Amino acid sequence: MTAPTPRHKRATIFDVAAEAGVSRGTVSRVLNGEPYVSAAAREAIEAAIAKVGYVRNTAARNLATQSSGAIALIVHEPDSVFIDDPNIGAILLGANAALSAADYQLVSLLIDDDRDSQRVTGYLGGGFVDGAIIVSAREGDPISQAIADLRLPAVMIGRPDNQSQLPWVGIDNRGAARRITERLVATGRRRVGMIAAGLDRDSGRDRLAGFRDALGASFDDTLVSRQPFYTYAAGVAGMAELLRAAPDIDGVFAASDAVAAGALEALRGAGRRVPADIGVVGFDDSTWALRAQPALSTVRQPAGQLGARAAELVLDQVRSGGRPADGALLATEVVWRDSA
Amino acid sequence: MTAPTPRHKRATIFDVAAEAGVSRGTVSRVLNGEPYVSAAAREAIEAAIAKVGYVRNTAARNLATQSSGAIALIVHEPDSVFIDDPNIGAILLGANAALSAADYQLVSLLIDDDRDSQRVTGYLGGGFVDGAIIVSAREGDPISQAIADLRLPAVMIGRPDNQSQLPWVGIDNRGAARRITERLVATGRRRVGMIAAGLDRDSGRDRLAGFRDALGASFDDTLVSRQPFYTYAAGVAGMAELLRAAPDIDGVFAASDAVAAGALEALRGAGRRVPADIGVVGFDDSTWALRAQPALSTVRQPAGQLGARAAELVLDQVRSGGRPADGALLATEVVWRDSA
Repeated sequence: MTAPTPRHKRATIFDVAAEAGVSRGTVSRVLNGEPYVSAAAREAIEAAIAKVGYVRNTAARNLATQSSGAIALIVHEPDSVFIDDPNIGAILLGANAALSAADYQLVSLLIDDDRDSQRVTGYLGGGFVDGAIIVSAREGDPISQAIADLRLPAVMIGRPDNQSQLPWVGIDNRGAARRITERLVATGRRRVGMIAAGLDRDSGRDRLAGFRDALGASFDDTLVSRQPFYTYAAGVAGMAELLRAAPDIDGVFAASDAVAAGALEALRGAGRRVPADIGVVGFDDSTWALRAQPALSTVRQPAGQLGARAAELVLDQVRSGGRPADGALLATEVVWRDSA
Repeated sequence: MTAPTPRHKRATIFDVAAEAGVSRGTVSRVLNGEPYVSAAAREAIEAAIAKVGYVRNTAARNLATQSSGAIALIVHEPDSVFIDDPNIGAILLGANAALSAADYQLVSLLIDDDRDSQRVTGYLGGGFVDGAIIVSAREGDPISQAIADLRLPAVMIGRPDNQSQLPWVGIDNRGAARRITERLVATGRRRVGMIAAGLDRDSGRDRLAGFRDALGASFDDTLVSRQPFYTYAAGVAGMAELLRAAPDIDGVFAASDAVAAGALEALRGAGRRVPADIGVVGFDDSTWALRAQPALSTVRQPAGQLGARAAELVLDQVRSGGRPADGALLATEVVWRDSA
């Protein structure tokens, strides 16, 4: 089925020049609206453009202004996490709507490995976009440094580490984790653990810090399972680890809803009833949280607003040439259901 | 926090010209590698580029060849569906990996409303991408027509309606729906209904046709609920409708896993046990299917392979200037778990 059927290639500026009987430079001058082209040549070129079906290259036309009318949204996640992440879709939609209102085109770029990282860096430096929104950056991320070096207007979603030179928009992960853990403790749980994840980024570290804040003097590090990613598999493994370490555990804060889903499965397998024997809370308020059995108590992230706010902060920079000084925190909400 | 701190704007070709003391046209000729520039001017321009920090605009450099090194992946979904769709992430990753191996940059574009549709059409015609992959196109989609008009190399994911001029890659929705319905019937169910969705696109129509194929003479149209989108809400509403129409219903094929999730919730609310009272099957094998209570019997879509194959078909066209004649169907698998 891949046998090619003959068809015309897209017309280039050379085709226009050949058809009009003029040099490529003359065509280029007409396309750029420059003077010193004879009326006869201009007419011949315009007729040739129509005849060969030449499509004006907007990307190239903007050489002088360095403006493309496009903003990149860069998602940097290993693939299992990307597919499980309930926030990325809403962030994309929020950013797309805000950029669309300003007639900018959102282009999303995935970084899944080092090859992607290098290619995306080249793309960002190539004049295809006027600014960038970075989702899920982590410590020592080469993309963040490349963007700073390019002086490209940019915003990170998620509070970056202290070295970052880029403005950001995020949520108060630490405060939200503290609030939901306090509420779990207030239901009478005495042995409360956490399945932590993503400790190589601010969200993971801050959620663990908030959990610790809530427990104060009764914090017990043996009741913390540390997992690499915010995944279902992390929840299954982490819950099994906590049940071995503390068979009397009666409450658990899972660092994300996907992690909570795995924890619920491990608890079913171990014959523990939720919430009768153990309370479980998550983080994200993904579409799954409402479908869980029992429905999951969790923290609602304002993902659409994060995308929209990031888009506004990038456009501010594109227009002003300035850079906002620091960051913005958006509000979260504890959503209490049946799992704790 | 948006108070701008002074910073340099990105350098343009005008800055280079001013610094070098030459015309913009001379800078342009040097950047394009053209002859007839004096050695002195060339040296001054190269020194000026380094001094002002001018970043070469790749998008513009490719004016003559009309090549950008980027391929668009266009997702056309209303937002509630986009967030719930378990396949899009895997399609993106599959396409990204295949394009990355060929040193092409994947750029994803969302179409959420008519304004997006018009802007994306302009972007595609603007020289920013060399080809396009279209996900979730539907009947009379203006983007498919615009791509055909632009003669842009393109592939649709999902079998298009007969009028489409574009090649495609998809799955055999009709055959897969027939197979899972037959298997449900083979478990002894006598009154089997369907919650259909997305009937304005091929996947929705073909899944209903496959359901009908499996039931043959015993097909009963009063046991089909027709819903607009593949969503949880559609499952809740559709299942309620079927329970009213046929209280003795003992099997249901939900057109997607998200629809099945809503159906399971409606059945819990109605006090029906799954699978004891009624068998439920879905379509997609989303990450949720395994987490469902009971775990969902469903059809596995090869989403990553769909993305990879689409990427290969676009690159074939970009390289050859030809267009493959028709489409490719990838294999699906019935995954039988506990819900039926």
